[in-house]
Order: sequence, then C-alpha cells, then structure tokens
Amino acid sequence: MELTVYLAGQIHDNWREEVKEKAKSKNLPVSFTGPMENHDRSDNIGEEILGEQPDNIYKDEAASKINNLRTRVLLEKSDVVIALFGEKYKQWNSAADAAAAVALNKPLILVRPKELHHPLKELSERAQVTVENTDQALQALSYIFE
Amino acid sequence: MELTVYLAGQIHDNWREEVKEKAKSKNLPVSFTGPMENHDRSDNIGEEILGEQPDNIYKDEAASKINNLRTRVLLEKSDVVIALFGEKYKQWNSAADAAAAVALNKPLILVRPKELHHPLKELSERAQVTVENTDQALQALSYIFE
Amino acid sequence: MELTVYLAGQIHDNWREEVKEKAKSKNLPVSFTGPMENHDRSDNIGEEILGEQPDNIYKDEAASKINNLRTRVLLEKSDVVIALFGEKYKQWNSAADAAAAVALNKPLILVRPKELHHPLKELSERAQVTVENTDQALQALSYIFE
Amino acid sequence: MELTVYLAGQIHDNWREEVKEKAKSKNLPVSFTGPMENHDRSDNIGEEILGEQPDNIYKDEAASKINNLRTRVLLEKSDVVIALFGEKYKQWNSAADAAAAVALNKPLILVRPKELHHPLKELSERAQVTVENTDQALQALSYIFE
Amino acid sequence: MELTVYLAGQIHDNWREEVKEKAKSKNLPVSFTGPMENHDRSDNIGEEILGEQPDNIYKDEAASKINNLRTRVLLEKSDVVIALFGEKYKQWNSAADAAAAVALNKPLILVRPKELHHPLKELSERAQVTVENTDQALQALSYIFE
Amino acid sequence: MELTVYLAGQIHDNWREEVKEKAKSKNLPVSFTGPMENHDRSDNIGEEILGEQPDNIYKDEAASKINNLRTRVLLEKSDVVIALFGEKYKQWNSAADAAAAVALNKPLILVRPKELHHPLKELSERAQVTVENTDQALQALSYIFE
Amino acid sequence: MELTVYLAGQIHDNWREEVKEKAKSKNLPVSFTGPMENHDRSDNIGEEILGEQPDNIYKDEAASKINNLRTRVLLEKSDVVIALFGEKYKQWNSAADAAAAVALNKPLILVRPKELHHPLKELSERAQVTVENTDQALQALSYIFE
Amino acid sequence: MELTVYLAGQIHDNWREEVKEKAKSKNLPVSFTGPMENHDRSDNIGEEILGEQPDNIYKDEAASKINNLRTRVLLEKSDVVIALFGEKYKQWNSAADAAAAVALNKPLILVRPKELHHPLKELSERAQVTVENTDQALQALSYIFE
Repeated sequence: MELTVYLAGQIHDNWREEVKEKAKSKNLPVSFTGPMENHDRSDNIGEEILGEQPDNIYKDEAASKINNLRTRVLLEKSDVVIALFGEKYKQWNSAADAAAAVALNKPLILVRPKELHHPLKELSERAQVTVENTDQALQALSYIFE
Repeated sequence: MELTVYLAGQIHDNWREEVKEKAKSKNLPVSFTGPMENHDRSDNIGEEILGEQPDNIYKDEAASKINNLRTRVLLEKSDVVIALFGEKYKQWNSAADAAAAVALNKPLILVRPKELHHPLKELSERAQVTVENTDQALQALSYIFE
Repeated sequence: MELTVYLAGQIHDNWREEVKEKAKSKNLPVSFTGPMENHDRSDNIGEEILGEQPDNIYKDEAASKINNLRTRVLLEKSDVVIALFGEKYKQWNSAADAAAAVALNKPLILVRPKELHHPLKELSERAQVTVENTDQALQALSYIFE
Repeated sequence: MELTVYLAGQIHDNWREEVKEKAKSKNLPVSFTGPMENHDRSDNIGEEILGEQPDNIYKDEAASKINNLRTRVLLEKSDVVIALFGEKYKQWNSAADAAAAVALNKPLILVRPKELHHPLKELSERAQVTVENTDQALQALSYIFE
Repeated sequence: MELTVYLAGQIHDNWREEVKEKAKSKNLPVSFTGPMENHDRSDNIGEEILGEQPDNIYKDEAASKINNLRTRVLLEKSDVVIALFGEKYKQWNSAADAAAAVALNKPLILVRPKELHHPLKELSERAQVTVENTDQALQALSYIFE
Repeated sequence: MELTVYLAGQIHDNWREEVKEKAKSKNLPVSFTGPMENHDRSDNIGEEILGEQPDNIYKDEAASKINNLRTRVLLEKSDVVIALFGEKYKQWNSAADAAAAVALNKPLILVRPKELHHPLKELSERAQVTVENTDQALQALSYIFE
Repeated sequence: MELTVYLAGQIHDNWREEVKEKAKSKNLPVSFTGPMENHDRSDNIGEEILGEQPDNIYKDEAASKINNLRTRVLLEKSDVVIALFGEKYKQWNSAADAAAAVALNKPLILVRPKELHHPLKELSERAQVTVENTDQALQALSYIFE
Repeated sequence: MELTVYLAGQIHDNWREEVKEKAKSKNLPVSFTGPMENHDRSDNIGEEILGEQPDNIYKDEAASKINNLRTRVLLEKSDVVIALFGEKYKQWNSAADAAAAVALNKPLILVRPKELHHPLKELSERAQVTVENTDQALQALSYIFE
C-alpha cells in the first residue's frame, strides 16, 4: 500500500523538504504533492499564462484560477493532507485548503505551534489529529503502516 | 421560495445586524443563521458545558467542539453562505467555514475590503461572487428573487 | 405533492409566460423558476453590483458570476428542468444549464423544433424526454400528477 | 503521478493532434482521450450497430446513444477536461460535455477565441480556467506537475 | 412526521387501493404515490404526447420515457418503497423499480407470495424486509410510527 | 428553524422521557425520534409480523429487519443524533447506530458515564461532542438556537 | 486504458464465453466479471458455507446473501455493465442487477431479443444502449477504444 | 483482480494471522489491513506522539485520534470488511468500525459465535453475510473469485 500526501500550508520556508527527507529516512511508502512553492511564480502564474491583467486584483484572480486548478487535481488524488501553519502570515488560503480537505473527507493532520492554538481552535477540532511539529506528523503517518 | 443564509465570518462588530435590516427593508424572504456572536460565550462554551479543563488548549478544544456542532447543523440547513472578512483578525476559522461551505456545494458570497484581495485570492476564486461590502452582497441575494 | 420546475433556455421571447399560463389552466400544483429574463439586466448585473469593469470580457465575467449564483440556487431547489432551444441563437449557456441539470440528476424535458434535432442529438439523448413544443412538455408534466 | 485529460469540443479540425504533440514535446505524463473525431463515423455509428433507422431523427438518436456511452466511460476516467470552442459551429454537445464535466467535479479548462466571450460567459465562469488557445491550456496543465 | 411511500410493482389488480384503505383505517400519516395504473394509458402515453411512432418498439420507447420521468420524480420524493410481485407477469420493470429504490438508498418492503421466493431471492435479500401480503407491509410501516 | 433529534442507545430506562421533558422546559423547537422502547415488542416484532420463525436466531433476524427499517427511516430524517451508553449492557447495536449516524454525516452527541471512557474512546473521538449526562447534551442542543 | 465489464443476466447458456472470445478476437483491452455461472453451486452456496437451513426459503436467503456479496464487490469494480435477457426465464434478479448498475451510474448495455421489447421497455430506456445480440454489444464496446 | 480486506474487530487473540494463512493456502489474491494489534501500543500511541496528557481520559482521546486516522485511511482503501466479535470484551469500537464500513457502502462479513446472536442482531442484519467462524468468512471471500 502506498499513500499520497498533500502538504498544504505556508510556502515561506523549506518545511516540505524536511518532511520528505524524514519520510525517506523512515522508508515510508509515501509520495508527496503540494502547492507551487516558488512564491513569485505562484503570484505571477496568472499573467504568465493569460497575459497582462488590468490591475493587481485581476492579476491575483488570474493567478488563483491556475493555482486552484493545481490544488483541485492534487487534493483529489491524495489520501491524507498535512497542513502547517506558522506564526508570520495570514495564510487564509492555507486554512481554506485544510477545510476543503476536511470537507472532501480526506483525513487532515494539522501542524501548528502551541501559541496558535486559539485562532486555529475550530479548524483543529475538524482535523483528525493536531500536532506541534512535523516530527509528530511523520510519526502519525508512520503508524498507519505498522 | 424562501432561502436560508448562513452569515460566516468575523464576530467582532455588528455587520450581521446590518445585513438583516437591509434584507428586511428589501422585503427579501430570507432567514439568517450564523455563529455565536457573543465572543466570550463562544470562547467559554466548552467549560460551561463540560466543566473546567486542564489548560487553555483543552478549554479551546472543548469550546470548538460545541461551536462546530452548531456550525455543522446550521451550514447543512443553509442555501447560501455569506462570509465577511475584516482587516483586524486572523480569522482562520472564518476561512475554514467559508471553504467548508464551498466544499458542501453551497454557493458562497465573499465580502472583503479591497485591501485584502491578495491574501484571500484563492478563497475568492472559489467563491461564487466576491464583493467589497454588504450592500453588494444583498444586491446579489436580491437578484435571485427577481 | 408540489413540484418546482426550472425553465432553462432562451430568454428572447415569452415562452415562459405561455408555460405558466398553460400550467395554471390545467391546475397543476407546480411553481416555476428560471433565469433573469430581462436580457439587458442579465448582461449588466455584474457592473450594476460590482461597478464598472475594465472591458467587455470582465463585464461579462462579472455578470456571469451573479447569473450563475442565481442559477445554482434555483437549480438545486428544482424537481424537474424544462429547457427550450430555438433556432436563432448560440445558446451555449442554455446547453450548459441543461447538462448541469442532467448531471445533478434532475430529470430534463428538452423542447426543440424538429429542425434542430442534429446539433442537439447528444443532449437530447441525455434528456429524460425530448419534445417539439411546450404543449407536449406540459402534457408530460401533467402526467406525473395523474 | 499521471493524469488523464479528456479533450472535449469541436471535431472539425486537428486541434487534438496539436495538443498531444505539445504535451509530448513538454514530456508531460499525460494521456489523452476524446470523442470520435471521424465526423461521418460519429454520425453513422448508430445505424452501423443497430441497423437502418426509420428516419434521420431516429438515426441521430441511435448515434447519440453510442456516442454518449463512449463519452460517459471516458469522462468518468479523466482527471481534467479541456474543451475547445471555435467560431463556426453550434457545438451544443460540446457545451453539454463541458457542463457535464463541471457537474462531475472535473476541473475544466475552456479554450475559446476572444470573440466568443459573450455567448460563453456563463460556461466560462463555471470553468476552472478560460484561455484563448491550446498553448495556454498546455501551460496550465504543465504547471500542475512543476 | 409524515412519510411518502411509493407503491411499485404490478398494475393489474387493485392492491394499491387496498393498501391506501388499510393505511387510512390505521390513521397512519402516510401519503402514497405510484406508477400510472391505467394499463392502456401507460402503454399509449408516448404516442399520446409525441405522436405516432414508426412501429411498436418505438412506441414502447416513447412510452417508457414518459413513464420513467414520472417514476424518477416520485421515487426521489419517497421515504419508503413497497413493491408487490404477483405470479402472472414478467414484471421486469417492477424489479427494476425495486432495485432502483434500493440503489437510491430508499428502504424497500418487498411483497411476494411464498411461491415466488426462488426467482426473487437476490432481490429479496436486498430489500429491508420481505413479506407475503400487504397486511404485513402495513404492520411494518405502522411500526415506524409507534 | 426546527430540529429533529434521534435518541439512539439503551432502551432499559426512561432517559428519553427525561430528555424530552428537559427540552420542553427549555422551550427548544426540537422533535425527538428513537428506537422502539418497549423491549419485548422490539424483540418480538419479527414474529409478530412475519409469523413464527424456526429458532431464536431466525427470530432475531426477523426482528432486526423490522427494527432497522424503522431506524433507517428515522435516522435519515434527523438533524442531530444523541446516543446514550450505560454501564450494564453490551449495546453493540447502539454503537452501530451511533457509528451509522457519524457515517451519514449527522453530528453525534455521545453521552456516557466517565467510567466508560476507555471502551468508547474511538467512538467518542468520532462524535462531535462527548458529555457525561443528558443535561449537558441538552445544553449543547440549546446552544445551537441561541 | 483498460475497462472492466460485468456480464449480468441469465446463467443458463454459454453467452458469456462467446462474449469473451469475441472481445479477444478484436483484441479489446477488456476484462470480464460476472455472477457464478454454475447454477447449482449458485443455489447451494448458502448451505455450503452456512450449513443446512430450516427450509427452502431460508436456503434461498442464505444463498442470495453470498451471491449478492459477490455481485456488490464486482459491480463496484466495473466500468460498464452488459446485461442479457433471454426468453425462457423470469430473471428478476437480472433485472435487479441491471437496475442496480444504472443506479450506481454504471453505463448499461442491454441485450434482448426483439420479442422482449415490451416487458423490458422501461429498463431499456434506462440503459445507455439496447441491442439485440452480443455482436452489437461488442461493437459498442469496441467503439469506446477507437 | 485483487481485493483489499480490512479485518476489524477484537485485537486480543491472533485470529488475523489465521485468516491471512488460510487466504494464503487458498492462493486468494487478497491483501489484508487492520487496526494496530499491539494492544499497549494502541493505548499509548496518543502520548507517544503528542506527549503526556492531563489524565486517562485525555490520554484515551489522544490515542483514539491517531487510531482513527489509521482506520479511516485503511477503511477507505478496502473492498470488503470482515469484523470478528468474541465473547469477552465490550468491543464497542469494533461495532463502530463495522457500522462505519456498512455506512461507507463496503460489504461487511460479520463473524460471531452463535451465542452472541442476540446482542448483535441489528448489526448482523446490516452485514452482507454473518458467519460463525473465519473458515466460513474465507469461503465467502473465495467465492468472489470463482
């Protein structure tokens, strides 16, 4: 049995690489997908494909159409979703991805520092498991295969 | 035909009352539901029902279970969801409610000030309509009945 | 038992009024919904609510968001869909509404002049019944109540 | 990860071959399916299998049953749908296929010349992305794999 | 609480009237629907609405489209389905209606004489309850309200 | 807004009457349904309707068909499920009803004495809320209407 | 692309072997499943596994549970269903399997001699295609791969 | 065709190993999954990953989150569920897993000693097949492949 795990959440540090390496060192039969991690490319993909837009709002709308195409296809193909929230950003789209996963009946592992427990409390309660770091998320993932 | 509209989003000002009054003045056959708007009560409902909890995290978890019970029942009974985002708060749970609405195939009207277009771009694209104020949301709602 | 019937299709003549009158004269317990029939208003509703748009494409996009909000809510609440195609227009949106009805598992009665049988053949095959005029559609509707 | 893409839309030129070649030159792990492109065969398949029919309407009905069998099986197995509309034809069945894809929750990339924006505005709004040529559609597809 | 019960099965005797009277005498808050019971009208409804057909097969096809429109609408609105099989007829369409009910997750009460147990064994096993006469079916229905 | 609440769980004491009275004293717009509470009748309903059975296993099978018919119809019509577990009985069917409610996406309020936390831990985690007595369950229910 | 085809219908002659050979000679990438074709084994499988039953009705019930386990698993894994009806038998279970396929949204190819058109008219109308012999069914299957 | 079978039920003896060996000796193309069988590890997994909890109830809640993550992923990937109940334990979670399987439309084979027929009667009736030992369950499984 192999599982596909979508890594939702912030794209401002390299946490996804760490998750992939940890999974590899545990020899888990897991493949990972996730959003475009190049932040500029993610913001510009709308104009790159559809051409220049009238203003920044239209530019954002164009980019989000392409990014959501990507998310929809990959979320549909995933067995588990891990979503990581950090302290610096608004990350509403991360919250939306996490909630979309829950609503699609994909089990969600939420990763957030303890300090963020209050603003994330309802989302945390919808997750299957909430942990504080990616090591714990990997332990939970690993437990499925034992 | 009557519609039930769930008013998701921030609970820090009285925007829901405004929406209800505007709908009334337009004579729209709409009834509204929404989250608990008394912020303290929403935070304390877990301990109120389940008793004192070991620490703040468990207190939040208890509260969110009761709040999500409420949200689930009311969201299921709604025909349209209006979600309003303001500039002051993290509002991740609002984003989660909005995304849950989309995933349940409920049409979503997203209300946000123009300044928030960038952090909300993917969620906005998943909404059926994105507007900047509640007057516009009411116009869209009213159009359904014309 | 009452049924709600969505009248999809062209908005360039008064066929919907005829259907409603015929249903009334047969005393059928049916209520009807349908798209905005004022063509100009349907085209302008985007700018009316969201303000002036950069060009005609954006104007159309804005209008279609509001129109689709309306269609989604009303289609979800319908028991049967009647879609009428005439000879003059492209009516791709009518075809899209009809196919959306089929995919939502709503039984579809397709009304089209005999001359249009070839371009509509696959859509006709997906309909529950295909007829040539609204009298026949009403007979089929009436038969449900006998 | 491999994706299966259904190429809906007009069957009067060789745009599907172009799409396949472009995907190949980009080394995308994509396989393509689509409707019968031999127009005569598509029109005659009903009589070929079921024998001569009483008139052209029955001939069309027989053909569309076989064509829809094909479409249903292939659409169900697809991850993404690309639908191309050109200027010459009524293409109602293309619109129906595109809308069926949307209703089956398959993300839709709509390709249409800028001139067709008005008659396709509601369908465009239901698509995940609307572009003007197949190069742009391929860019969007390619972005999923980056 | 009121229930709607669809009475599927043979249309060659007046068993439906008996069921309705028994329900009335028990004061059950139940309303009943079912197929067209006038056998000739059921066979001729296709030509009545769509005009004369080329031969008997096309006549049957036209009739079954209208009859299935009726069945689909009424089955969708029902809470429970009672299907009665007698010994005289092929009744494949009754079997199909019963199985459609099961697949739509509607609980099915199957009524059949003991002699028919063998040919109906797989269908019986899919039913929620199998009984031998309509008195027993009414007892089961009545038990829901106790 | 009115809610229908199914009261699953043990049928050996009068906890359901207490729940109904408490709801009445709080003026909650709630109507309650639940399993047959007359234990003997629940055990004998199979033979009552279907006649004497070969042995106790067949008697149980006959009874459970009728009881499950009842449960299915009522569960489908409920908005919330409250399930109470006591200490004396095996109550596997209660656990099955509770899990069926969860799987049907009905929010579940689990009521159990603290002493039963261990054997019910996985079911408790699937519930929306777990409480220790019916007063708490009513508080949670009441909170939905505030 | 490979397809799995469930061959529902009568088990009294070797039509399934003919279908398999024809598919092989056309080199279609199709694998076939179907019911237990050994008629005695199908009738006795209940007692073979569960031991002797009180009478023939219980024997049939036991057998049908095992047969339906088989059907459910295989139907769920199929892409297309072909159902063949002959003139000799009641075949209600075949009709039930065919209707279950339709309700599971599996495209159905119905095979029946022309003489049976009347009793099968409603089921035929629910099928995607109705043909008179297995050669035609194979042609339709083959067309999907062209 | 290969099938994946989830082995729900008690984890206090080695019945799962017996099932796997019997399947192997019959050369069935079946792979098995199931809950964590190391009872202590199953009880402690919550604290192992999430750290020490305030008391035994929170410890159980933490463990059940991780165990349910495992169950959800594996149940979703299964084609058939076999659930075994023995006489010694409360096994409410087993009942819950079995009912979840039924509600997810997975066919369920229930294994229980004859003595337990009464408390399991409603669950048994929801199962596709109920048998008394694992040999019979394997026979039923094997029959699918004949």
